[in-house]
Amino acid sequence: MRLRNKPWAEEKLADYPKYVIQQPKSHKGQWKEVFENNNPLYIEVGTGKGRFITEMAKAHPDVNFIGIELAKRVIVSALDLLIEADLPNVKLMNVNANDLHGFFAKGDVSRVYLNFSDPWPKNRHEKRRLTYETFLKVYESILPEKGEVHFKTDNQGLFESSLMSISRYGMLLTYVSLDFHNSDYQGNIMTEYEERFSQKGNRIYRLEAHFQ
Amino acid sequence: MRLRNKPWAEEKLADYPKYVIQQPKSHKGQWKEVFENNNPLYIEVGTGKGRFITEMAKAHPDVNFIGIELAKRVIVSALDLLIEADLPNVKLMNVNANDLHGFFAKGDVSRVYLNFSDPWPKNRHEKRRLTYETFLKVYESILPEKGEVHFKTDNQGLFESSLMSISRYGMLLTYVSLDFHNSDYQGNIMTEYEERFSQKGNRIYRLEAHFQ
Repeated sequence: MRLRNKPWAEEKLADYPKYVIQQPKSHKGQWKEVFENNNPLYIEVGTGKGRFITEMAKAHPDVNFIGIELAKRVIVSALDLLIEADLPNVKLMNVNANDLHGFFAKGDVSRVYLNFSDPWPKNRHEKRRLTYETFLKVYESILPEKGEVHFKTDNQGLFESSLMSISRYGMLLTYVSLDFHNSDYQGNIMTEYEERFSQKGNRIYRLEAHFQ
Repeated sequence: MRLRNKPWAEEKLADYPKYVIQQPKSHKGQWKEVFENNNPLYIEVGTGKGRFITEMAKAHPDVNFIGIELAKRVIVSALDLLIEADLPNVKLMNVNANDLHGFFAKGDVSRVYLNFSDPWPKNRHEKRRLTYETFLKVYESILPEKGEVHFKTDNQGLFESSLMSISRYGMLLTYVSLDFHNSDYQGNIMTEYEERFSQKGNRIYRLEAHFQ
């Protein structure tokens, strides 16, 4: 067994099957059974400490949410939020974004959120950005026709490269804000990071795009 | 005859056939004869006082340039610059951007520049923006396959709506800078407006896109 930073984190995730999907592969094509309703499912890829997904679930009780996060020591903080909120419509999944098509069939997911994803600023790390074409291909494979991706970031370089990547993929850009917190958008739910960095005066960029 | 703001402007434009195209329709499909070479032709739509097109012509002697400007009282300033520079590879045309396909055949123009175009910020004026789909259609009709549009502006709203319009048209976005003057782009030639507004601290946005 390889060493882990926080072995207790893995145990804790296993202790809360109500909030943490334990066997994601087993639900492929059958996520309605997990939530016991026919509501749409929105996922956040890179959910971090989980504030966005938890607040979204509170604000939209008629939508199901899953927060995807690979880092165990981070997702346990999201689990704490979910335990406290005790909502029926939000869960977590401790998996790699690369593997999502193994857990979701086409159309299982109705919308993908990407919030303040790691910018991977070096050119040689371009392929690790969550808006790189290989990831877009994964999202396309789990979304319905014209499925939407909603993305926000304070990182200028990531937003620039994402606009180009989305265009190159042939997606349609339906919303762009280059100064989101000074736009007339209503109902924004901030991530932990978003609140901290916008208070410092960082601009927030946001886009919506859909596959064609 | 209707009244004009500056009747002398029209006379002055007529007095300089060396720099101002007098019968643009007559050159359709035959612009190589006008410049007497086989170099590519780049046009600026909305050339204003002409600094960009004149400096571009100086910097790129192996490219032909035409500055398009509808406002007579503005284009006469561009004419003054051209008279002073006395370059063989740059001319002006006092026509409406809507009519460009009447003057250029497909492929006559190799690149279109749009610089600090009027933002027309009201929604009801959207169709007047030079990146609106009707204008993109005109540019497509005079450019070759995969013909390029290069656009810069300090107007956030115009840049946002242009990104969406370009995406909706099915163009491919190949370059985006959300803070162009702090980018590593080399060889930028500033317009009069660009210099004034960037000195005030306004961000400059820039994109390149091509038809598919």
